[in-house]
Amino acid sequence: MKDRKHITKTGLAALFLTLFSTLAVADEGMWTFDNVPVQQIQSKYGFTPTKEWLDHLRLSCVRFNDGGSGSFVSPHGLVLTNHHVALDELQKASTKEHDYAHEGFYAATPDQELKSPDLEVNVLVSMEDVTARVNDALKGAATPEKQFAARRAVFAQITRESQDKTGLRSDIVTLYGGGEYWLYRYKRYTDVRIVFAPEQQIAFFGGDPDNFTYPRYDLDMALFRVYENGKPVDSSNYLQWNPNGARDGELVFVAGNPGSTQRQDTMAQIEMERDTVLPDLLTMFRSRIATLRQYSALGPEQDRRASGELRGLENGRKLFEGEVKGLDDPHVIATKQKSEEDFRARVMANAELKTKYGDAWDQIAEAERKMAPRAKEIFFRSTDSDLAELAQLIVEYVAEIKKPDGERLPGFHDAQLESLKQQMFSPAPIYKDMEIARITGSLELAEKELPASDPFLVTTLNGQPPKQVATELVNGTQLEDPAVRKRLVERGEAAVNASNDPMIVLARKLDPMRRQMIKWRQDNVQSVVQAASAKLGKARFAVYGKSIYPDATFTLRLSYGQVKGYPMNGTIAPPKTTYYGLYDRAASFDYASPFDLPSRYAEERNKLNLATPLNFVTTNDIVGGNSGSPVVNRAGQIVGLIFDGNIESLVGDFVYDGETNRSVAVHTSGMTEALRKLYPTQKVLDELMGTPVAQAR
Amino acid sequence: MKDRKHITKTGLAALFLTLFSTLAVADEGMWTFDNVPVQQIQSKYGFTPTKEWLDHLRLSCVRFNDGGSGSFVSPHGLVLTNHHVALDELQKASTKEHDYAHEGFYAATPDQELKSPDLEVNVLVSMEDVTARVNDALKGAATPEKQFAARRAVFAQITRESQDKTGLRSDIVTLYGGGEYWLYRYKRYTDVRIVFAPEQQIAFFGGDPDNFTYPRYDLDMALFRVYENGKPVDSSNYLQWNPNGARDGELVFVAGNPGSTQRQDTMAQIEMERDTVLPDLLTMFRSRIATLRQYSALGPEQDRRASGELRGLENGRKLFEGEVKGLDDPHVIATKQKSEEDFRARVMANAELKTKYGDAWDQIAEAERKMAPRAKEIFFRSTDSDLAELAQLIVEYVAEIKKPDGERLPGFHDAQLESLKQQMFSPAPIYKDMEIARITGSLELAEKELPASDPFLVTTLNGQPPKQVATELVNGTQLEDPAVRKRLVERGEAAVNASNDPMIVLARKLDPMRRQMIKWRQDNVQSVVQAASAKLGKARFAVYGKSIYPDATFTLRLSYGQVKGYPMNGTIAPPKTTYYGLYDRAASFDYASPFDLPSRYAEERNKLNLATPLNFVTTNDIVGGNSGSPVVNRAGQIVGLIFDGNIESLVGDFVYDGETNRSVAVHTSGMTEALRKLYPTQKVLDELMGTPVAQAR
Repeated sequence: MKDRKHITKTGLAALFLTLFSTLAVADEGMWTFDNVPVQQIQSKYGFTPTKEWLDHLRLSCVRFNDGGSGSFVSPHGLVLTNHHVALDELQKASTKEHDYAHEGFYAATPDQELKSPDLEVNVLVSMEDVTARVNDALKGAATPEKQFAARRAVFAQITRESQDKTGLRSDIVTLYGGGEYWLYRYKRYTDVRIVFAPEQQIAFFGGDPDNFTYPRYDLDMALFRVYENGKPVDSSNYLQWNPNGARDGELVFVAGNPGSTQRQDTMAQIEMERDTVLPDLLTMFRSRIATLRQYSALGPEQDRRASGELRGLENGRKLFEGEVKGLDDPHVIATKQKSEEDFRARVMANAELKTKYGDAWDQIAEAERKMAPRAKEIFFRSTDSDLAELAQLIVEYVAEIKKPDGERLPGFHDAQLESLKQQMFSPAPIYKDMEIARITGSLELAEKELPASDPFLVTTLNGQPPKQVATELVNGTQLEDPAVRKRLVERGEAAVNASNDPMIVLARKLDPMRRQMIKWRQDNVQSVVQAASAKLGKARFAVYGKSIYPDATFTLRLSYGQVKGYPMNGTIAPPKTTYYGLYDRAASFDYASPFDLPSRYAEERNKLNLATPLNFVTTNDIVGGNSGSPVVNRAGQIVGLIFDGNIESLVGDFVYDGETNRSVAVHTSGMTEALRKLYPTQKVLDELMGTPVAQAR
Repeated sequence: MKDRKHITKTGLAALFLTLFSTLAVADEGMWTFDNVPVQQIQSKYGFTPTKEWLDHLRLSCVRFNDGGSGSFVSPHGLVLTNHHVALDELQKASTKEHDYAHEGFYAATPDQELKSPDLEVNVLVSMEDVTARVNDALKGAATPEKQFAARRAVFAQITRESQDKTGLRSDIVTLYGGGEYWLYRYKRYTDVRIVFAPEQQIAFFGGDPDNFTYPRYDLDMALFRVYENGKPVDSSNYLQWNPNGARDGELVFVAGNPGSTQRQDTMAQIEMERDTVLPDLLTMFRSRIATLRQYSALGPEQDRRASGELRGLENGRKLFEGEVKGLDDPHVIATKQKSEEDFRARVMANAELKTKYGDAWDQIAEAERKMAPRAKEIFFRSTDSDLAELAQLIVEYVAEIKKPDGERLPGFHDAQLESLKQQMFSPAPIYKDMEIARITGSLELAEKELPASDPFLVTTLNGQPPKQVATELVNGTQLEDPAVRKRLVERGEAAVNASNDPMIVLARKLDPMRRQMIKWRQDNVQSVVQAASAKLGKARFAVYGKSIYPDATFTLRLSYGQVKGYPMNGTIAPPKTTYYGLYDRAASFDYASPFDLPSRYAEERNKLNLATPLNFVTTNDIVGGNSGSPVVNRAGQIVGLIFDGNIESLVGDFVYDGETNRSVAVHTSGMTEALRKLYPTQKVLDELMGTPVAQAR
């Protein structure tokens, strides 16, 4: 399960946050750390996490800026996450001589650790409930549009104040569809270095076919080290390494950053998702996959360049196909329908709730009806290109930062500028031939999906064939050079407006159209949905209290559950897999890709205890963004590393089914076995094992 | 996939043979040896089986009398089949000291080979089309009842003539729902001895959970030797052992005896099956499983006694559940509906066909409507008991053999008497405590399912509690002694009528009720359905010709296909599995039953090449009864041993879906590896390898 954040649905769905309409049961829930259901956990598992236990876990966790989770696993800044979270960095660090994604990487000494050009990790150091202050600021705003503006203004004010005061990254998190607002403060670390990654073949063994499925046999791990002021950080909050891993039936916790869920969506939103958003997304993903496959067939170097992007796209395609399948299941739809009816009936049965919130469902439905015919503009008025994205960012950036913070486009608030700069000036390589292929493909798709008179097509193509336009844009631009981008941004709006760089020229031409669309959506859709969702959030509080969890928001959450197999395809999927299974699956396909093994696995097989657990499944409720999350036991020790969900979990975006929904994790004993016996990694293993834990179980 | 014959649906469905309504496509089809689709095979796979090739294969195949298939694999009468086909025999041969089912068995020398008390194998030595003769005999019969009687009479006449002339077992096979009648002659062998069987744990590794599923890791094999006149038969028609087994994508054939299919059923029959037959069957199976589980929990000896029966019941339950699931699938129903509509429209569009056959669908529907309210009598007027079954057989036998052959009940014709006697006088052990448990359970179920006034209940219970009745019956009878049964039968009807044995007394009392029901069904249901099905069979010939295959009839069929993985639960199931996978699955469940391994597999693991293929899947179209069938390559060599179908194949009773329907087989290299390295079976392996085949591939 690749980070969902990475493949976000162009923001369309992300803003449709509404209400969850059934009570949490079983091991369901991605709980905020201020509202962990300790009684539920105690009554089911006989264990109560204390405040200290929770604080320690929270402070041991990190969030990656490009979508993913991780945790400190030594007192010297060592961070464990997934190979697939590290993949972009491995690719950026690779050269023609060394493809670290493919070969793997290990820094035996600190000076060999590879600094990531633009990776950032955040630690959630404090959480503050600012609901009252936000609601106060909203009191004077009569219309949804005004509320939207007022909310944006007060968000910017709070975060700026916080940042000025603490120096910490400060974000407002909207929970329960606006039922609560929280100020989350993060310690940011921007010096993150790669320490270890195994070969991609073993990290992503089984490739796209096995992605989102189980039984699984992936060593999807990577180790980074976080530095500050040129030295490894002193990470006194870290998770002790338990080399025995998790046992069948054991209570385990997952702390990480689930990207987004739509469990509180109304039926109108779910239908929009099923009938419009997902089909368009699938069209886009399939087209981009076809383009990149064609490109990567040109040679091994092209294959290397495209593989990261391609993998993300294939991951998205499979995810969305899984969601469509789930939403086509009459049982799932009936469950959602029933819970909406229950919730709505409770609201309508109470005169006060009915007056205040009863119209919210219809308002959302109306907004969806307005959005549907314009959805294609959102998905297909776009060029699939790093260069075009950078050009757009630069054009927007220089205009936005001149405005008062509260009036800027989302993403351009003061508190976000550091991250934006890192993105704009990243030295990550850009491959011009791949850019041409991607732009050509996406413009050809736009020609197919949009009417010929669409202003995006007219402006971009101006009657020329896509390939010619793409070639001229890419060959004419200098934006691949980070120094050029930096100079342009530093010289400000006038310089950007005067630039003859064709990418900047095009971005300038498209800018008004884009702003118009953003404004239209804000006024007609997002503000309406946001206000109505806030109503439903409040109604939900009134009906169910805080016994429920909010939809995921790519912020830190805790889920509890247990190691457990499940009924699968007529039989039972086991709680764990072993190295035996890795060799079985490879041999079963005659070692054909993606079931081929790195050579060390063939040559040094006899070193391994093949019965060592490799992957395992738990009932923990997670989604994309949780990739890299630690799985911890009661003692707070790390016993596993989340890297995926099973195919039955894909509909988990909308509904959690405890019977079959499983998170998939790498077992710490599997990692320990590989580090000890297959890789020259004794030193980092010693660091992991630093604190003896053998007796702690 | 346990032999379907074994768990036959009490004959109810078996007689509802009608018409198949779509053209055969892909690798679909269980073809009779007189009508192999050589052009289809040639055009898809570039291979044409010759008459010699087919004759050799046919004469190398055997059918087991208790439902299952097998093949000669040496010139000295060695027969390969499944462990689960041999299981009954292993259990019958077991004692308190030696549980051969559990421990496995190997006869290192001929004198150690264990003779089965009642096993019989048949080889199909000739096939003769007798359609014209049967149709002639039916000409004078005006009503369905008369046709039924006339058909029965001419069948008996033909088979008796054949038997008198040739000394061979002679059966009439009704194909295409009566479109064709064939006389099949079999060479019978009744001296069948067990040579080798591995431990049940490895033959049925994964137990009920893994049954009917794939990937799979079962060494489901057994070897018998067929004797005649005290010497191993000279089986010059045998299949050469190919120790390399089948390759991915390779064309393979399966020759065996599929038990029954209902692909030609009308919608009315399918609905009857889905709404009445299968639910009642599931009720019965679940009840019997509960009874036997309770019994086997009493101790290890009870567990051993019940295990074979229990396994068959669990197998049936899973099979029927799979069928119900398939028939609840709207897609499956829509497919069937559409093909029936097509066929019916073609018939109705032709004036002659319409007049002759157009009323058949309604006639079948009317018969089903009559049957439905009485279905419960068929399923629940029964005691689940070997003793009661023997008593009923004896009571019927002595009465039937006095009649002219053509007037007897089905099963009592001259040609069948030898097999009947073997069944009646079998020395197989009968466990009285298990008999009491089974009778009690089935009478309790009858009390629940039938009205209190039902004559079966009144007669059997006579107001007493089921347990008391069961105890008195079992403790009072002497029928567990084969000599007692033999004496009774030899002394004839008068002796049987005078017997005070309580089992015989009860069977006598129930006899008129049972005959009445048989007659009512024959007159009102079977004769109507048979006549209407024959009409549809003829209509089908007129419309589609002989381009299609007839429904399965537990007679020899050939299917063709290829070794091929398939899409499964979000990923791909591999074409084969290996010994690695066996150890993975065992370790994944911490070696808990049914995922435990026989000790030799743990202790001697290092002897094995774990990458050796163990099981594999093919697109061949098979069903229960095919268990034990050889999988052969173009060279006619044996490369695998059918033992199951995947979960997706269960709806194959009604429809074949080439994308996911797979037969599951043991790989000859997996068998070779085990025989060579884990068992003291070098001698029998030498016999298998007798003819060098290494260069033949």
